Amino acid sequence: MAGKLPVSPLAPASFPDLPVIEGASFATAAAGVRYAGRTDVMLCRLAPGSTVAGVFTTSATRSSSVLDCQSKLAAPAESDLGAAILVNSGNANAFTGRAGDDSVEAVCAGVAGVLDLPASRVFTASTGVIGERLAHDRIVAALQTLSTNLSEDAGEDAARAIMTTDTYPKGAGRVIETEAGPIRIAGFAKGSGMIAPDMATMLVYIFTDAAVPQPLLQEILAGATPSTFNAITVDGDTSTSDSLMLAATGKGPARVEEAVSATGTAFAEALHAVMLDLAHQVVRDGEGATKFVEVAVSGARDDADARRVALSIANSPLVKTAIAGEDPNWGRVVMAVGKSGAEADRDALTIRFGDILVAEKGWVSPDYSEDTAAAYMKGQDLRIAVDLGLASGAFTAWTCDLTHAYIDINADYRS
Amino acid sequence: MAGKLPVSPLAPASFPDLPVIEGASFATAAAGVRYAGRTDVMLCRLAPGSTVAGVFTTSATRSSSVLDCQSKLAAPAESDLGAAILVNSGNANAFTGRAGDDSVEAVCAGVAGVLDLPASRVFTASTGVIGERLAHDRIVAALQTLSTNLSEDAGEDAARAIMTTDTYPKGAGRVIETEAGPIRIAGFAKGSGMIAPDMATMLVYIFTDAAVPQPLLQEILAGATPSTFNAITVDGDTSTSDSLMLAATGKGPARVEEAVSATGTAFAEALHAVMLDLAHQVVRDGEGATKFVEVAVSGARDDADARRVALSIANSPLVKTAIAGEDPNWGRVVMAVGKSGAEADRDALTIRFGDILVAEKGWVSPDYSEDTAAAYMKGQDLRIAVDLGLASGAFTAWTCDLTHAYIDINADYRS
Repeated sequence: MAGKLPVSPLAPASFPDLPVIEGASFATAAAGVRYAGRTDVMLCRLAPGSTVAGVFTTSATRSSSVLDCQSKLAAPAESDLGAAILVNSGNANAFTGRAGDDSVEAVCAGVAGVLDLPASRVFTASTGVIGERLAHDRIVAALQTLSTNLSEDAGEDAARAIMTTDTYPKGAGRVIETEAGPIRIAGFAKGSGMIAPDMATMLVYIFTDAAVPQPLLQEILAGATPSTFNAITVDGDTSTSDSLMLAATGKGPARVEEAVSATGTAFAEALHAVMLDLAHQVVRDGEGATKFVEVAVSGARDDADARRVALSIANSPLVKTAIAGEDPNWGRVVMAVGKSGAEADRDALTIRFGDILVAEKGWVSPDYSEDTAAAYMKGQDLRIAVDLGLASGAFTAWTCDLTHAYIDINADYRS
Repeated sequence: MAGKLPVSPLAPASFPDLPVIEGASFATAAAGVRYAGRTDVMLCRLAPGSTVAGVFTTSATRSSSVLDCQSKLAAPAESDLGAAILVNSGNANAFTGRAGDDSVEAVCAGVAGVLDLPASRVFTASTGVIGERLAHDRIVAALQTLSTNLSEDAGEDAARAIMTTDTYPKGAGRVIETEAGPIRIAGFAKGSGMIAPDMATMLVYIFTDAAVPQPLLQEILAGATPSTFNAITVDGDTSTSDSLMLAATGKGPARVEEAVSATGTAFAEALHAVMLDLAHQVVRDGEGATKFVEVAVSGARDDADARRVALSIANSPLVKTAIAGEDPNWGRVVMAVGKSGAEADRDALTIRFGDILVAEKGWVSPDYSEDTAAAYMKGQDLRIAVDLGLASGAFTAWTCDLTHAYIDINADYRS
């Protein structure tokens, strides 16, 4: 990465005031993993009784940390002693062979030591350049200080410490009232490509003070992922390290015992809102992005077909460059529908840009005005809606445009 | 398209001397379909006795011409009267509803009239802007003159008339000696994105003077497609109009009666060479391309998995921008392997750039020198080889880099 990138034009005005989650405390340090002059390690301590759930990349070349987290979550150890999450930026510790596994083990052992936890309750993630050995001794050397600086108010600092090519820290929170009492949810994320594996990778950490049994926590998290973090794309590339973790400390008054209950539904909805907020912020920090684009597909044979079409449009370089050029190039939308593999009937297709009816029944609408559509495309937040006219399958995806800045960021020789 | 594009730096020095195919004659005209000051219609007449085979886009939104060609080839009519191919550039006649079907019918009827053929033996293709009604009357008005200008020597003119955003005409030919006598093969192609549906689409026409029964011609053509035209990608997008047709006039001495025979094998090999040559020329004219890249995958569980990995690498925007930046960013190759969906074992992977061993056994090679690899990446013709180390599945794909010029060409407001 050659120098600091300008803040995305799509960035929110400021970092939100996150609710404090009792039982989740954070500390950050500048350990010098790779970057100079900024924090690059984040430690999170979760109080005894916390439950932890996670969703991870499906990549066949996923990192040592991901494999370690997955194995620990597959057989959750007792949580009487709490848990911890340690994330470093600057080095992804991916494709580093057995040395990568050793680094994860060393970091987990170090965290376990300073926090008096079993290593089986320590979760890690690394993000940054891949293929270089992680200087885990620098992380381990910072742990004692980190452990003494833990604070429940340090969420924004934590969000900053895990950034790589991100141009702004990403946070989202909700406080909801349920019949079981208030529930607080706060989370932060990093990511500026769906993946840019040598510098950026999506990492998301969300916390709640509700008490939620681990299997239910996992179920609710996994249920909310397809329509949030799995519905966004910057470049269609998939990280070696993508991790999404949710921890429930149980320090608040609310207990969520069942998914199908007033409290369970309220919690799931609020969690979904936090996840969608963070997912949109990741897209808004897409490398080189100047437009935020919602792609809403309806009328598909089923939801899976709708997803295929939505992601085919959202990933198409031709659609994304047309958006960058503010060109209402609906022909490329037709192309992307056609190539998606989903069932489609040319003569049943309806396409809208915002509220503008562009095409229907297999041809451009008689009322369509290219000037009106071109004016719409000059906006910063755009919506492309495609109705396949076949059945009721629906899916919405979010993406950004493909600009010169994407190429500048990614073609730049690593330095 | 704003103005004439500079010729691709990867273009061949000149158009090849194509062998003349007896029984296949060509004429071109400037009918003013959309472009001014250049030819935009190509008529090919195939002598009585010719057989015709075709392979077409699988897009669900394919054009009226593609649907018409497919239905005619599904039930080949008698060929005693010969056949004809009519291609226009400037307008793709795609997503034009029923009007598009009417245009195809009008053009086929017109060609049938001037050449005294049944309309069922007239094949058409259109390439250019989509969603606009084709001014087929301008094509029909040119047919009489076209029919009187037909010449067996006009292959290069034909290749030029079907260009859209192509920066050079693409031709390839072979003359082989077989035990049945000499066989001549000549073909031409257009295409400068895997698809850029409002301006460019891959169209390929190949001719031979051998006599080949239609079912065998179709079998040989379809057999050669996966490793040639279906192994190239510029942007991963799929056209509404991609068409590949092969005509055998039977005017030469050779008859190809069986695939498994000395003559059949020689013909198939020569045809494959012509197809690969044209396919490479399409990539070399990829929009904005400055590097031609071979992606060779071996050691996969099976050939299908190898193809998944090769195309995942060849389509990755992150890999393609790194190549544009002359960055030996092998971490992105690892990422693309991981996301492909193919079976892969991090610790069995071997990656080479040209002859340079980059990574093996899940980590960078101890002998790897970034300086040597960076020097290699400055070349114009590059090779990325990935061995998955699992079994013997193999596939090779070809692509180009992703540059600012791609965005300039495709983000440009249509004008």
